Amino acid sequence: MTCTKNLKNVVQIGIVVDDIEDVARKWCKILGLEKPKIIETDDWNKTKAMYRGKPAGKAKLAFIELDNIVIELIEPIDGDSTWSTYIKNYGQGVHHIAFKVENVDECIEKLKDIGGDIEQLGYFENGIYIYMDTRKSLGTVIELLKFFNN
Amino acid sequence: MTCTKNLKNVVQIGIVVDDIEDVARKWCKILGLEKPKIIETDDWNKTKAMYRGKPAGKAKLAFIELDNIVIELIEPIDGDSTWSTYIKNYGQGVHHIAFKVENVDECIEKLKDIGGDIEQLGYFENGIYIYMDTRKSLGTVIELLKFFNN
Repeated sequence: MTCTKNLKNVVQIGIVVDDIEDVARKWCKILGLEKPKIIETDDWNKTKAMYRGKPAGKAKLAFIELDNIVIELIEPIDGDSTWSTYIKNYGQGVHHIAFKVENVDECIEKLKDIGGDIEQLGYFENGIYIYMDTRKSLGTVIELLKFFNN
Repeated sequence: MTCTKNLKNVVQIGIVVDDIEDVARKWCKILGLEKPKIIETDDWNKTKAMYRGKPAGKAKLAFIELDNIVIELIEPIDGDSTWSTYIKNYGQGVHHIAFKVENVDECIEKLKDIGGDIEQLGYFENGIYIYMDTRKSLGTVIELLKFFNN
């Protein structure tokens, strides 16, 4: 039941882009916001990020805070990842929608039940992320975010 | 200023799909919801929908109501449209994110200022929609929704 509740609240829309500086600047221009800090994903020894069974590449990230949701901009910068594959195949676009979840295993099972599969996962500073390939069943990748401190 | 405020609240995420019955069923399964009614866009004499200067094709639509946002599923069913072009080029995926706006002209101008262009527009029962091609500047198509009754 926890998972059903968690999956009713979209926390982020993840957009893969070619040039994060440029796209962040334009989002901020239309929203009247200060340009956000652009960060890089941690090195692999911290993230342990795996993409389809192999170490995943890195990305630059920027978070644009809207009122009800966060737009996450992602520019792949090296190595193969779910993000680099997306941009090679499709160009810029919405890569995933993200949900903050309490019980990761329950949500993974629920998404596997409808045909989903783990595509990439890794650690970030205070949590873990899992991209589920639910393109066929739900029409988009779903990201599960589990924070360790709440 | 109205537009800046309106563009901070995402009201819908629009996902183009091959088989709306199947995808709607799977969204509802993970969310514990009743399957939504599947509707068709109105005929052209009502919508006057135009896609890049020509009458736009139709689509089946379903709306999955999450807590903070609506997932709009879209299955193109005939003719050329922004939706049919998307699915031909990319397969299933997130086509746009939508905002409810008060001043359509102000928002169109704001999005044109950052390089956007009108891609498709038309009427629905109680309003008008405009898809802005902001793929290059914002990484996704933006839909502006203007309701006539509020």
